[in-house]
Amino acid sequence: MEQNIFHLQYALDTFYFLVCGALVMWMAAGFSMLEAGLVRSKNTTEILTKNVALYAISCTMYLACGYELMYDGGYFLNNITMIDLEATLHQFGQREGGFTGDAIYSQASDFFFQVVFVATAMSIVSGAVAERMKLWAFLIFTAVLTAVIYPIEGSWTWGNNTVFGLYKLSELGFSDFAGSGVVHLAGASAALSGVLLLGARNGKYSANGKVNAIPGANLPLATLGTFILWMGWFGFNGGSVLKLSDIGNANTIAAVFVNTNAAAAGGALAALILAKTLFKKADLTMVLNGALAGLVAITAEPSTPSPLQATLFGALGGLLVIVSIIGLDRLRIDDPVGAISVHGVVGLFGLLIVPITNKVATFSGQIIGAVTIFAWVFIASYSVWLLLKVTMGIRVSEEEEYEGVDKSDCGLEAYPEFT
Amino acid sequence: MEQNIFHLQYALDTFYFLVCGALVMWMAAGFSMLEAGLVRSKNTTEILTKNVALYAISCTMYLACGYELMYDGGYFLNNITMIDLEATLHQFGQREGGFTGDAIYSQASDFFFQVVFVATAMSIVSGAVAERMKLWAFLIFTAVLTAVIYPIEGSWTWGNNTVFGLYKLSELGFSDFAGSGVVHLAGASAALSGVLLLGARNGKYSANGKVNAIPGANLPLATLGTFILWMGWFGFNGGSVLKLSDIGNANTIAAVFVNTNAAAAGGALAALILAKTLFKKADLTMVLNGALAGLVAITAEPSTPSPLQATLFGALGGLLVIVSIIGLDRLRIDDPVGAISVHGVVGLFGLLIVPITNKVATFSGQIIGAVTIFAWVFIASYSVWLLLKVTMGIRVSEEEEYEGVDKSDCGLEAYPEFT
Amino acid sequence: MEQNIFHLQYALDTFYFLVCGALVMWMAAGFSMLEAGLVRSKNTTEILTKNVALYAISCTMYLACGYELMYDGGYFLNNITMIDLEATLHQFGQREGGFTGDAIYSQASDFFFQVVFVATAMSIVSGAVAERMKLWAFLIFTAVLTAVIYPIEGSWTWGNNTVFGLYKLSELGFSDFAGSGVVHLAGASAALSGVLLLGARNGKYSANGKVNAIPGANLPLATLGTFILWMGWFGFNGGSVLKLSDIGNANTIAAVFVNTNAAAAGGALAALILAKTLFKKADLTMVLNGALAGLVAITAEPSTPSPLQATLFGALGGLLVIVSIIGLDRLRIDDPVGAISVHGVVGLFGLLIVPITNKVATFSGQIIGAVTIFAWVFIASYSVWLLLKVTMGIRVSEEEEYEGVDKSDCGLEAYPEFT
Repeated sequence: MEQNIFHLQYALDTFYFLVCGALVMWMAAGFSMLEAGLVRSKNTTEILTKNVALYAISCTMYLACGYELMYDGGYFLNNITMIDLEATLHQFGQREGGFTGDAIYSQASDFFFQVVFVATAMSIVSGAVAERMKLWAFLIFTAVLTAVIYPIEGSWTWGNNTVFGLYKLSELGFSDFAGSGVVHLAGASAALSGVLLLGARNGKYSANGKVNAIPGANLPLATLGTFILWMGWFGFNGGSVLKLSDIGNANTIAAVFVNTNAAAAGGALAALILAKTLFKKADLTMVLNGALAGLVAITAEPSTPSPLQATLFGALGGLLVIVSIIGLDRLRIDDPVGAISVHGVVGLFGLLIVPITNKVATFSGQIIGAVTIFAWVFIASYSVWLLLKVTMGIRVSEEEEYEGVDKSDCGLEAYPEFT
Repeated sequence: MEQNIFHLQYALDTFYFLVCGALVMWMAAGFSMLEAGLVRSKNTTEILTKNVALYAISCTMYLACGYELMYDGGYFLNNITMIDLEATLHQFGQREGGFTGDAIYSQASDFFFQVVFVATAMSIVSGAVAERMKLWAFLIFTAVLTAVIYPIEGSWTWGNNTVFGLYKLSELGFSDFAGSGVVHLAGASAALSGVLLLGARNGKYSANGKVNAIPGANLPLATLGTFILWMGWFGFNGGSVLKLSDIGNANTIAAVFVNTNAAAAGGALAALILAKTLFKKADLTMVLNGALAGLVAITAEPSTPSPLQATLFGALGGLLVIVSIIGLDRLRIDDPVGAISVHGVVGLFGLLIVPITNKVATFSGQIIGAVTIFAWVFIASYSVWLLLKVTMGIRVSEEEEYEGVDKSDCGLEAYPEFT
Repeated sequence: MEQNIFHLQYALDTFYFLVCGALVMWMAAGFSMLEAGLVRSKNTTEILTKNVALYAISCTMYLACGYELMYDGGYFLNNITMIDLEATLHQFGQREGGFTGDAIYSQASDFFFQVVFVATAMSIVSGAVAERMKLWAFLIFTAVLTAVIYPIEGSWTWGNNTVFGLYKLSELGFSDFAGSGVVHLAGASAALSGVLLLGARNGKYSANGKVNAIPGANLPLATLGTFILWMGWFGFNGGSVLKLSDIGNANTIAAVFVNTNAAAAGGALAALILAKTLFKKADLTMVLNGALAGLVAITAEPSTPSPLQATLFGALGGLLVIVSIIGLDRLRIDDPVGAISVHGVVGLFGLLIVPITNKVATFSGQIIGAVTIFAWVFIASYSVWLLLKVTMGIRVSEEEEYEGVDKSDCGLEAYPEFT
């Protein structure tokens, strides 16, 4: 009977992982819709193609080598359905305290949950470089980031690769529950390095210093994308508890769901109010970015704040993202969807507030972690982008940009009858 | 080992609540897409802004005080991750009959499931007042409804607030399983009071009595919204069983899923056939409203009908909604998306058919409940709308309505390149 | 206590079925968006109406008689919440080896999972006959396929109807895990028979043999539909394991999730590369069809391949679908969304590769199964379409086709302000 209980526990924890993983996979659709809604119609087919392709490449490269690099987990690739039942049950029997031990669940479910995180990191990049980057340069970068750059970075916090896990950030007082740093800041760092080498879109910044708004073509799509991301984030943060099947972990997961939702709500409201104050208008795109900023802000630690704290942290994220978007435009760093602000600036903010509610983390540890992640991902990505720039080029021609990359890269218009 | 089983039960029931809650949260996206598809393009950004903001406000206000009013549940807000494990296990040990007792699960998961219901009630309002209500008047009303009006109303049926729970509707023979009355009729009552004070859109009704159709700008979006709501309703009704972890409750949840789906199907088909008969055309918007009407009709009691009964109840809802939409137009009550008909008229219908299959409910009890809910929400809401009308005003200027509220309220066009 | 464990097992397996079923229901939204994105705007309202109505008809007809035909399961329709607890527990007690026996779960959850499969089969048809078939002829066909044709076909592989289950395909070495044949090839066979009787859209093929591209009106919608299908497929394949609650089955489900995702990724990438090679452009519609082809290819056996094999199988599906789309156009078989290629040609391919990794299946058995499914569904469907053609007609008039079927069938434009 002991054995039957273990079967149930194993099955429940595996199913929990798979459900959360499916929600994170769904975030790929969210990024696609968000970005497709915020670019101009002439660049919509291409950004959709990039998003589908980057998800596919991420899954394939992480399967082929990323997971191995990050977790020494490659063995399972050829043995996915094999399990040593005897050894597992023996391991279960040896645990003291029964249900308080480590999670035990299908390794394939663990892979599934991890692989969709890689795709999330890469989705951040596609938005920032939209409307002017060559499709195939982007896809090659995607392969490198998801096969090598992200897995090595991830292994320092979450992984256990014996070669690249030279030092463990967690041993230095760094804590990143679900990836404000490991996923979001990392993705934004890769994006920033690309944007710096790529330059702004033609017409975004006038010679006299004026910043010209370039409105997105389809705001319902951008709103849908935000709701999809909001929903998927329950899997992103909720699944990062890693185990469901005892009272303590179940309570933590429930708290994570509540706090994730509260932070997004706080972010949306704060951004709405600040946008109304600054621009005299309820700027929907700022509200959407505010919600996403709230989500990023709480991701580094969604389990220890009270719901009111989570609302507050999210609200601060929502304010910060507007300030950051305005600030980056002053620096002429052109990010069509605000991805660097949402995921990078607010990702850093999320890391820095962890010690307020989680005493395992230290402020210095959080800084060390953030600097490590940023430095590695930025420098490695910059090197790859630079190599691509000097070889195949990363920017479309001026004429292609003017005509829209849909025509040059995809040969298909997104809305052939409407524009 | 007894304890291990309890851990599993607690974790499973908590997870079930969270999954269902995430599906209900997803309904916020459904309402957004439905409403954005059914308004004109010049009012699309604003209705999207309203929907995102109302969800955020609902979550924040219900957290700040609504949940406390409805369930005396405020304590958990600052203690979300604390749990008295000893006391809980003791409580478990004392239950006779093991798994047949009350559900025991994370209070945070309960909050999460409840908070998304509030947002649903408020989403109903946004559609009915679309295209002419001031954004900020709407948002202030949202805060009052979700903080006070809905929680007090909800406490009479589902809650246990000792102050406002003066009388329990359930003790008077009223039964509302998942909220045809508590959520849908309540939302529609708030909407109706707003519409009466607001008046019809310019051009909707000619002086000679003619009703002018104002077509929605994006029917794929409205269809997507309906599918999202259909899917989310599995969580809405399925989660309202409140407990999964024994055979009886598991069977009930499965029956609820089957019946919810059957009623929506019946509603869509009946509306399709009636629309074809009346208008000689397969009017897609009526089919969508028919599906939603089927869902609302079954929500008051999805657990006791057979699937064929559920199909029939849904079909009757689908017929009724068309009759109601035509009738409200004759009364010059302008509801751009049909929300008052779908959620109010059919919500009442759903309450009245409960006694057919559930003998706990009485016909008189259902009427008492419906009248109570309608009277309280309508009068309270009317008072708030009236106060807003005489102070800040609730209707945009004629010029703003003509130009579209996107421009005046949000400063952004939803489809800048298409129209 | 033994009994408590069984309660939990039963509840967990039931919940697993319901979650997977909800994901498959979500695929109805996916097909709707995919098809609405790939047709012209003048036929968009009608294809949406078809999709909502076909889902509703499928659910109602399968409830009324299809489930009975396929599984002798009609009894439960009027007794959905009844369960003989004593008998069930007795059955549980008699099982040797505890958790290794057959799955035991709510019959209503089984029905829910099955009913959404029928709708999937029918969704395949709507895309292939889009833009020129009469709405009501299509809906009548829907009723016949979902009430009779599919259930009889399904009973040969998955069902246990004692009348129609004359011979069991499984006893002939045929294996179809989640329905590459039973669902996808079947749907495509019905579609092909309709397309042959219906003919190509006006203007698709010039007299001189030229194939004219007819671009879809809304590619973000088509991309959204593909992501929805991708997500829903985790329920489609994952739920087909039929049981979660022991280690072996939990591992299998996790492997199915990983492989389903890997195959879709492989299909998208292979199609991207082949499209770039053939057409010099990254054709988004081919990438989407490639992802769907990968999903169909793995559906006949997602549990036994390694993830790398799954990626490869998906990639071969992605190549095959492009070849097939080009080939069908040469044969002047006009399929606006590529459904016959994705679900039929790749569905057959999926069946044929099962024996590579699953030794229970034989190559000859797979051929016998494929031929049986195709022959029955094609001939039965052809007869029904023919009967409809000679009585009410199946094709709209030339003028209606020119004006768009939205106007003639639905009386509503999908995008009244944009085109």
